[in-house]
Amino acid sequence: MTVRVAVAGASGYAGGELLRLLLSHPEVEIGALTAGGNAGSALGQHHPNLLPLADRVLVETTAAELAGHDVVFLALPHGHSAAIAAELGEDTVVIDCGADHRLNDPEDWSRWYGGEHPGTWPYGVPELPGARERLRGAKRVAVAGCFPTVSSLALAPALAAGLVEPEAVVVAVTGTSGAGRALKPHLLSAEVMGSASVYGVGGAHRHTPEFIQNLSAAAGEPVKVSFTPVLAPMARGILATCSAALREGVSADSAREAYLEAYGDEPFVHVLPEGQWPQTSATLGANTVHLQLAVDPDADRLIVVAAEDNLTKGTAGGAVQCMNLAVGLPEITGLPTVGVAP
Amino acid sequence: MTVRVAVAGASGYAGGELLRLLLSHPEVEIGALTAGGNAGSALGQHHPNLLPLADRVLVETTAAELAGHDVVFLALPHGHSAAIAAELGEDTVVIDCGADHRLNDPEDWSRWYGGEHPGTWPYGVPELPGARERLRGAKRVAVAGCFPTVSSLALAPALAAGLVEPEAVVVAVTGTSGAGRALKPHLLSAEVMGSASVYGVGGAHRHTPEFIQNLSAAAGEPVKVSFTPVLAPMARGILATCSAALREGVSADSAREAYLEAYGDEPFVHVLPEGQWPQTSATLGANTVHLQLAVDPDADRLIVVAAEDNLTKGTAGGAVQCMNLAVGLPEITGLPTVGVAP
Amino acid sequence: MTVRVAVAGASGYAGGELLRLLLSHPEVEIGALTAGGNAGSALGQHHPNLLPLADRVLVETTAAELAGHDVVFLALPHGHSAAIAAELGEDTVVIDCGADHRLNDPEDWSRWYGGEHPGTWPYGVPELPGARERLRGAKRVAVAGCFPTVSSLALAPALAAGLVEPEAVVVAVTGTSGAGRALKPHLLSAEVMGSASVYGVGGAHRHTPEFIQNLSAAAGEPVKVSFTPVLAPMARGILATCSAALREGVSADSAREAYLEAYGDEPFVHVLPEGQWPQTSATLGANTVHLQLAVDPDADRLIVVAAEDNLTKGTAGGAVQCMNLAVGLPEITGLPTVGVAP
Amino acid sequence: MTVRVAVAGASGYAGGELLRLLLSHPEVEIGALTAGGNAGSALGQHHPNLLPLADRVLVETTAAELAGHDVVFLALPHGHSAAIAAELGEDTVVIDCGADHRLNDPEDWSRWYGGEHPGTWPYGVPELPGARERLRGAKRVAVAGCFPTVSSLALAPALAAGLVEPEAVVVAVTGTSGAGRALKPHLLSAEVMGSASVYGVGGAHRHTPEFIQNLSAAAGEPVKVSFTPVLAPMARGILATCSAALREGVSADSAREAYLEAYGDEPFVHVLPEGQWPQTSATLGANTVHLQLAVDPDADRLIVVAAEDNLTKGTAGGAVQCMNLAVGLPEITGLPTVGVAP
Repeated sequence: MTVRVAVAGASGYAGGELLRLLLSHPEVEIGALTAGGNAGSALGQHHPNLLPLADRVLVETTAAELAGHDVVFLALPHGHSAAIAAELGEDTVVIDCGADHRLNDPEDWSRWYGGEHPGTWPYGVPELPGARERLRGAKRVAVAGCFPTVSSLALAPALAAGLVEPEAVVVAVTGTSGAGRALKPHLLSAEVMGSASVYGVGGAHRHTPEFIQNLSAAAGEPVKVSFTPVLAPMARGILATCSAALREGVSADSAREAYLEAYGDEPFVHVLPEGQWPQTSATLGANTVHLQLAVDPDADRLIVVAAEDNLTKGTAGGAVQCMNLAVGLPEITGLPTVGVAP
Repeated sequence: MTVRVAVAGASGYAGGELLRLLLSHPEVEIGALTAGGNAGSALGQHHPNLLPLADRVLVETTAAELAGHDVVFLALPHGHSAAIAAELGEDTVVIDCGADHRLNDPEDWSRWYGGEHPGTWPYGVPELPGARERLRGAKRVAVAGCFPTVSSLALAPALAAGLVEPEAVVVAVTGTSGAGRALKPHLLSAEVMGSASVYGVGGAHRHTPEFIQNLSAAAGEPVKVSFTPVLAPMARGILATCSAALREGVSADSAREAYLEAYGDEPFVHVLPEGQWPQTSATLGANTVHLQLAVDPDADRLIVVAAEDNLTKGTAGGAVQCMNLAVGLPEITGLPTVGVAP
Repeated sequence: MTVRVAVAGASGYAGGELLRLLLSHPEVEIGALTAGGNAGSALGQHHPNLLPLADRVLVETTAAELAGHDVVFLALPHGHSAAIAAELGEDTVVIDCGADHRLNDPEDWSRWYGGEHPGTWPYGVPELPGARERLRGAKRVAVAGCFPTVSSLALAPALAAGLVEPEAVVVAVTGTSGAGRALKPHLLSAEVMGSASVYGVGGAHRHTPEFIQNLSAAAGEPVKVSFTPVLAPMARGILATCSAALREGVSADSAREAYLEAYGDEPFVHVLPEGQWPQTSATLGANTVHLQLAVDPDADRLIVVAAEDNLTKGTAGGAVQCMNLAVGLPEITGLPTVGVAP
Repeated sequence: MTVRVAVAGASGYAGGELLRLLLSHPEVEIGALTAGGNAGSALGQHHPNLLPLADRVLVETTAAELAGHDVVFLALPHGHSAAIAAELGEDTVVIDCGADHRLNDPEDWSRWYGGEHPGTWPYGVPELPGARERLRGAKRVAVAGCFPTVSSLALAPALAAGLVEPEAVVVAVTGTSGAGRALKPHLLSAEVMGSASVYGVGGAHRHTPEFIQNLSAAAGEPVKVSFTPVLAPMARGILATCSAALREGVSADSAREAYLEAYGDEPFVHVLPEGQWPQTSATLGANTVHLQLAVDPDADRLIVVAAEDNLTKGTAGGAVQCMNLAVGLPEITGLPTVGVAP
C-alpha cells in the first residue's frame, strides 16, 4: 500500500516532526508541503534535519494544493481546519493536529476557544477506552493535545477502575517546543535556559477541558482536574505528575494491576518495572509513553508519573498512529519506540 | 561588629554558596574553611568563582579547627553536626545546613533518617509563624531543607487562615545543585540535560516530614502532604506548584489578602503583582521567594506557585539570614534581593 | 559622592544588567529609566529579578527625560547615541553600550555599519594599554563589544610583547543573551537548547574590526584576525579560544610571565593558577575575566582561553567600571568579582 | 542476510547508541550484551530508551561470551581490545570503538597512550581518501574518535586540493556524552549547565595525533594541528570550527568546488546550501556530518564548520557504517540520515 500524504503547516515544529516520522514510514509517499508566511521557501531552511526534503519548496496552504492526497495532516493555528476539511471531500482522510475538533461539548468549545464549535471528530488517543474503534477507518481525526495525551493515559486506568476519587491534580513539566515556533518573548532562549516557570495556572490552560472530557469518560462521572503546566529548560518532553485521593482499601498492588491490565498489550504505553521512574529523555523522538505509579499511604493518594515526547507521541507520532488506523495499516507501522538518549 | 565565621564542608555546593554570600557580608570575617576528602587542597580548585578565597587551603573538619569562631556553619552530611556542636561549646553559634535537628518528633527522625534523634534546634525559616522569635539570639539553628522552605512559605498562609483543607499536593521542580556534589550516575550532565525526571515519589523524599511539620503547625491540625520532586535541566532553582482544596466561600480576593497580610512586610518573600507568575531565574543568587496564587473555580482548589534559588534562600542565604538574627544584626544584612537574570 | 544616573534602553538585557549592578553600587542613585516600545510599562514586567525597581515606570527615550543626570547609560540599537549625546551637553557623562563610537577609522565604520561615522569615543576596556588614562574623567565612553573585550584581553599581552605573529584565530562560544532581547527565530529556546551553531563566519561579524583595532594597537602593527562566534545553549557567558603562531624561542614560561606582568595588578582580569582552565560559570554575574594560556610545541602556537560574562564584564560591568573612572570613583566601586556558581 | 552481533560495553553511552541503531538495522540480530561492573543487571536500568531490550541481562565481557557472533563491537576502555580480538579468531569481524588501533605510528601510540602499540587496523571513516576500500570486507576496524571524524572530514578536501597551508586550527564544541559515563566531578550536571569550559588545551587531547595522521595523509605532507575541545551544556553534538591559511589565488568558488567534488556523492556528508550554517541539532541521532565553508579575505583563511552527533556519526553510527562495509551490505543500510530536531 502506498499512502500519499500532504502536510499543511510544514514549517512549524509539529509539521517538521510529522515529516521526520513520515520519511521513515514504509508505506508513505510525501506529497504537498504547505505553509503560511513561509510559502515559497525551501523546507531545508526551516528544518535542516530533514535532509531528504531539503529542496522541497513550500506552497501556500490551500485546499487546491492539499487535494488529491489520501491523507492530509493539518498542523495549523486553531480555527482553520473545518473549512479546509470541507473542501477536501469525504474520501480524504483529514488528521487535524489542532484543537478545533477535540471537544464534544459546543459550550466547552465556546468557553475556551470562542466562536462557534466546528464539530467533534474521533479523538486521537487510541489507547483510551473505546477510542481505537472510532479511529479505525475514520475519515476525520482530532489529534489530542500533548498534555491531555500523556496525562489522560496516566490517570484513566485508575479512574476507570474506581481506585481514586474523581478529583485529579496534574502538574506537567514541558519542554518549550510545545509552544510552537511563534516568536514570543518568554520563549527566547535566554529567558528559558536556567529557569523554570509556569503559565496558565488555575485552570486557565486550554487543554483543561480536554483533560476533563477524557477523565470523566474514563471515570463514568464528572472529574475535577487541577492542571498546571510548568515550562522547563528543554526543547522536548513532558513529564506529568498526576495524583488523586485513593478510595478506601486500594492497595499498591491492585493499582499496579489495573495499569498492567490496561496497558500490558499496548505497543506504545509502557508501565516501567517497579522502582524505575520515567525520564523524558528515554522517550525522545519515540512514540511512547513511559509511566510508573506509587501509592502514598500517608497522603492517601495515588501518584502516577508519565513521560512522553510532546512532539512525537504528544502530537505527530500520535497523528501517524491515527493515520495507520484510519487507512487500515497495522497501528505500529513506521513508528519508533526507541528514544534517542542520552 | 565583626562576626568571625567558619564553614565546615566548604568544598561542596552549600559551602560554596555560604562563602559567596559571606564574602559580601559587611560584618563578617571568614575564618577556617574545612572539608572531608578535599582537605589539603586550595578552595579555588573547587570554587573557581570565589576568587578572593582562591588560595585558602581547606583543613580537616574537626572541632579544633572550628573552635574560636563566633559562628560555625555546618554544611556536612547528615549525622555529623550534633557531635561537633557539643564540642564547640554553648557560646558558639552553630548553624546546621543539614537535616539533623529539623524534626520535632524523635519518631519521625527515626523513621526517615534512622538511629537516635540528635535533638531539635530552632527552625531556620524566619518568615514562618513564630520562627523569627526563636531564632533571635539562638545559639543553635537548624537551617530548613530547600523544598520545605519554599513550599511551606507557599502554603502556610492559606492553612493558617483556614482557606483550604488540610491536604496539600506539592510538585516541585528543582535544579540539580540541590542534590549536592556527590558523584551519582543520574546527576551526570548527559543524563540531566534535555530531560525531566522524578525521584522520591509517593512520600519517599526525606523532606516530606519537614513539610508536614511546618504545614501542620501553620494549620493547627495535621496536614497531609503529597510531595513529588522533579529534576529539571538547570543548575539552580526550585519552582514549587502547591495546591489544596478550597474551603467553601473562599474567594480569590480573600486568598490574595491572606498572602499580602502574611508577607507584605517581609523583605525576602514577595507576592508578585497580579498576573505575573514566578520564574526561578528571577531569584537566582538572591535570598528571595517569589510567589503568586490563583483560585481555580472549576477544580475548587487554591494553587500557589513559589520560586526560590535552592542554594540561596533554600540553603545558604537562609542560613545567613538566621545568623543575622542569632548574632543580633539586622536580618537583611549582606543578603542580596536581586537575582542574576537572564 | 552621589552619582545620579539614567539608563536608556532599560527593558533590554544590557539595560537590566546595568540596573542590577547599579542597585548595589554604593554611590549611585537611579534616575530615569527609558525604553522604546516598552515605554509606559513597569520595569518589573521585563526584569522580575529587579525587585527594588519593580514599580518603576519606563518613560520614552528622549533627551528631555535623560537630561539632568550626572551619567547617562545608553543601551540602544546602533545609530541612536550620537544625536542623544549632542542634546545632553558636554557636562553629562554619556556611556554608550552600543557600537557607534568604538571604531577609530571612519572607513571601517562605513564598511561595517553603513552611513557616516558618528565619531570616536574613548574605548571602554581600561585594562588595554593606554585605555585607562583616556577613560579617567572622560565625558564620553564607548563601551566595548562583548567579544572584543574578552578576546582583546586574551591576546593583547602576547602581541604587545612580540611573542606571536600578527595573525590570530579566535573562536568564541557565547550564550544567547549577547544577541539581545529581539525576537529572532534562531534565538527561540527550542532551537538553541541541545544545539551548538555558528554565525557571522568568515569575518562577517561586526565585532571583527574592533578586534583588529585593539590587537593592532597592542602589536604596533596590523594584525589579521579570523573570528568565529559559536552560539551555545546557555544564557550568559563567553569562552574565547584565541591562538596565534609563536615567534621563535618563545617558551611557555616567558609567555606566562608576559601575562602575569600585564594583569598581575588588575582587579578584574585573573590569570588562573597553572593547570586550571576557565569556565564561564565562575564569572557569572561578576565583572571578571578569567584566563589561562598554553604553548603547544607541536603546533607552534600560543593558545589563550578566556572567560567572561558577556552581560557583566562584556557590557554592563565594563560600563560601570568606565563610569567609575569617568566620575573619579575608585575603579572597583560596586563591582562584583565573585561569580554565581554552580 | 542476517548478521549476528554482540556488543561489549553495552551499558555505556557508545554501547547504548550502538544498540539503538542496531535495533532498527534490518539485517542484524542482537546477540550477547556484555559489561564490566554492570554485568548481571538488566539493560533497561542503564538505557531506559531501549525498550525492546529492557529485560536483557548484561553478561561479563569475556571472549567466551562474545564468541560465535558474526560481528563484535567493542565499546571498552582503551587497552582491552587487542587481547579480546586475538581470542575471537580471524573470521569474526571486530569493530573497536576505542582508540587502540587507530594510530599508524607505534611511537605516536606510546607517546599518547603509553605502553606497547597494539597494532593498526583499517580506520573507520569511509569518506576519507582511500578508507572505504580498506574497510570493505575488513575483519578488523578501528572506529575513529568523535573529534577526528568530523574535523578530518572538514579539512581533508582543502588539504588534499592544496587550497590551504598545512597548519590547521580546530576548536570543537562538544556535548558531554563524548566523555562517556564515568563519574567525574567536572561532568556533574550542575557544573556543566550554564557554562562553557575547555580541556586538553595546547595539544594535550589524545585525539590530536589522530587529526595529524588523517590530515597529513590528505595533504600528502605533515600537517600541524592546534586542537582545542570546548565543553558546552548539551548532551550530544560536536560543532567543529576548522581553519587554515589560504594559499594564494584560492577563491571561495574553488574552495566550494573542492568540497562538492569530495562529498557530492557521499550519503552521510552534506555540504549545506550557501548561506546555511551547521547546527548540531540537525544531526542529532543521525549518521550525518553537515558542513559549510567560508573564505575570509581579510584574514586570508579558509573556515570550515562541521557538525555531527558525537555518539552517532562520531562513534556508533560510524561503527555500523563500517560494519556494513565489512560484511558486504550496502553502506547505508539501517543508518538514519534525519536528525531529531528541534
